[in-house]
Amino acid sequence: MLITPSINGTRMLGRLDTFAEIGATADGGVDRQSLTEGDRRARAAITEIALSRGFTVAQDAAANLFIHRRGGHAGTPPLLIGSHLDTQPTGGRFDGALGVLAALEVLESLEDGNIQTAAPIELVVWTNEEGCRFAPGSMGAQAFIDGTLSDTLLASRSTDGLRLADELAATREALPQAHLCTLGKPIAGYIELHIEQAPHLERAGIPIGVVTGVQGTRWLKVSVKGEAGHAGTTPLSARRDPMRAANMGLARLYETIMQTDTDARFTVGRMTVEPGSVNAIPSTVVFYIDIRHPRLKELDAIEAEITVTLHDAATGAGCTIAIERVFDMEPARFDNTLINAIEDVAKARGVASTRMVSGAFHDALFISRVAPTAMIFVPCRDGISHNPREFVDPEFCIIGADILFHTALSVSEMPLAEGNPTIRTTAISNNHKGVGT
Amino acid sequence: MLITPSINGTRMLGRLDTFAEIGATADGGVDRQSLTEGDRRARAAITEIALSRGFTVAQDAAANLFIHRRGGHAGTPPLLIGSHLDTQPTGGRFDGALGVLAALEVLESLEDGNIQTAAPIELVVWTNEEGCRFAPGSMGAQAFIDGTLSDTLLASRSTDGLRLADELAATREALPQAHLCTLGKPIAGYIELHIEQAPHLERAGIPIGVVTGVQGTRWLKVSVKGEAGHAGTTPLSARRDPMRAANMGLARLYETIMQTDTDARFTVGRMTVEPGSVNAIPSTVVFYIDIRHPRLKELDAIEAEITVTLHDAATGAGCTIAIERVFDMEPARFDNTLINAIEDVAKARGVASTRMVSGAFHDALFISRVAPTAMIFVPCRDGISHNPREFVDPEFCIIGADILFHTALSVSEMPLAEGNPTIRTTAISNNHKGVGT
Repeated sequence: MLITPSINGTRMLGRLDTFAEIGATADGGVDRQSLTEGDRRARAAITEIALSRGFTVAQDAAANLFIHRRGGHAGTPPLLIGSHLDTQPTGGRFDGALGVLAALEVLESLEDGNIQTAAPIELVVWTNEEGCRFAPGSMGAQAFIDGTLSDTLLASRSTDGLRLADELAATREALPQAHLCTLGKPIAGYIELHIEQAPHLERAGIPIGVVTGVQGTRWLKVSVKGEAGHAGTTPLSARRDPMRAANMGLARLYETIMQTDTDARFTVGRMTVEPGSVNAIPSTVVFYIDIRHPRLKELDAIEAEITVTLHDAATGAGCTIAIERVFDMEPARFDNTLINAIEDVAKARGVASTRMVSGAFHDALFISRVAPTAMIFVPCRDGISHNPREFVDPEFCIIGADILFHTALSVSEMPLAEGNPTIRTTAISNNHKGVGT
Repeated sequence: MLITPSINGTRMLGRLDTFAEIGATADGGVDRQSLTEGDRRARAAITEIALSRGFTVAQDAAANLFIHRRGGHAGTPPLLIGSHLDTQPTGGRFDGALGVLAALEVLESLEDGNIQTAAPIELVVWTNEEGCRFAPGSMGAQAFIDGTLSDTLLASRSTDGLRLADELAATREALPQAHLCTLGKPIAGYIELHIEQAPHLERAGIPIGVVTGVQGTRWLKVSVKGEAGHAGTTPLSARRDPMRAANMGLARLYETIMQTDTDARFTVGRMTVEPGSVNAIPSTVVFYIDIRHPRLKELDAIEAEITVTLHDAATGAGCTIAIERVFDMEPARFDNTLINAIEDVAKARGVASTRMVSGAFHDALFISRVAPTAMIFVPCRDGISHNPREFVDPEFCIIGADILFHTALSVSEMPLAEGNPTIRTTAISNNHKGVGT
């Protein structure tokens, strides 16, 4: 072990094992989708522990769960630490759960050490980060910053056909020990520990990533229309082949965007070809492009390059093209005070750290819009997540919890709340609907 | 009208209208898929006309329908003329039906003119040319040359879940006027009139295509496997992206194959991307390539180029690739005597003609393996078929039937049968299963 941790590592690893049993799948993964019976069991389990330690437990209309440990200064907004307990259907044991159970460990270790913090420290379990059963992802964090859940959202249905409003109500009612609190409230800040979901830390041999922000993401829906025709009889001169247009355009983009800028991400993960006959020139090809970049200017430039290249390719093949921006998330920049605090703690604890930008969305991305926010990453094996093979070395779990502990302790003494914006009264633009992470 | 036809054009156009009503769709098309109630009504309608003219009607185990007009030389194998009456679900009025009703018109005009031919002339309606309800296409013609229907085929089910054996039996039983004949028999030759299904004749302003053969076709199933990953977090160096591999490889092939050889056809009409999430690098991309060429050597060369190019692209993207030849139809060459006969007739009738290779499969492709065979094409508007918009100028219908009439008359006097191979006793390779035309 690199450090002698200030938290009870054995207890936390035991909790990780216990919670991995809730929704465990035969292949060693976890299927604990949001607002399911498994999710409710996980909520009940953490609530039971919290109450046994004398913490107070509350939940809001979005079923975000708050476990409060009293601070020294009455009336001070709490410092939130936490993550999410829901998983993908083919999820692993650490994505979300590590951040929640490390935060629980922080509260318990403070309690064990009888340590009085200035600001209260509060564990938050955000509802539906994954967005796979109900869309969008980070639903609870978004509702928290918006202070509301729209009627449209409440009427929306899960992949298994149930209304969000009903599933939220059933989840809240399954936890009568938690009193109901308002949706959205002043907080001093938010710190989230999470697995990296990428191979950078592991490759660099560095146990702690200090996350400076989240890269921007856009999704483009591209529809190329040509004309169906007989594969055997139609000469090239008579073809208006959208598959040809799509391939020629995409090949040029694959050759440029990520080759020339290592910060850029360019992914085509979905494509449908109509009518889909082996021996028919397609009439329509629809595909989605996911582009990401830490800087807005470059994101704009990438989108412009895509637009020009694909229009050229479509025109060259006698096709028409429509490109629609179906999702747009600007790059987020985390709070410098918190970033420095994490870095200082890592240094003081003798743990190597590196600054990095998150490629994935997180609840922290949303919370950063209303309060000082930062994230701590730990390495996961081969960068794999959303997969039963997801794995984090126990040592890194403990180091991450230790860094979270000392950062929370340090930050709880800072006058963050003075610069803390109040909860926004206007809603964030709604263009982040339907999004996974 | 370019010519004074030797057949009754008005009667034939009336028949085209009548048969277009059988399975007519609201959009002006025809949905008369093989062995359906519509197909049976069409068979009954043509049988009724045939019997009223004193022709004999037979059907074989594959429900191929034969309408026989006696020839002068007893025991001479018949010259077959005909096509198919089944359509695609979104079919038109001419694909298949023109060849059958023109052949009927030939028989009736011979009868009207009290013309005695040396060889009997026999109209054939092949079962299930389209292959859309039951696979493969040209099922009846294949069974005819094989002399058998395999148990596997008989047990296969239609897209609407019915067994082929049952649907064949019901179709045969719906036509008790037709006596049962053996599956496969000696024939003097086969001539099929069909719409071109391509724009060449129309563009050239030539009413008659003398088809010298059918280009070869291969279908390649290409499976590219990489590794699923997070679109936001995975850097290029860690990606094994099968979509990138597929696009880069296909773009190179789109740029070369058809650009450098106007006889070549290269089509990608089907692609599936797994898992198909917008924000996930795919794990697997599977697509099908349809390649065609009139010459076997070039078909081989194209397949070799595809194999090398796609393997390079896959390797370059860290992916594995499997390329499987799922269908292989060698180029077919029609009979020179028949080709010359059609050409001579067109010249004698003062009708412009041009030799051409068929891009599409036809029943004639299979019959050419066992007997002298040729095809006559007439232009269709914009080259469109398998579509309610399919249209043939009535004048071209009449010219086509007239050329078929004179060719059949001419050929029936030729000693074709002497060079006629007997029906093969070994089955054709079964790699033409599951094929449409």
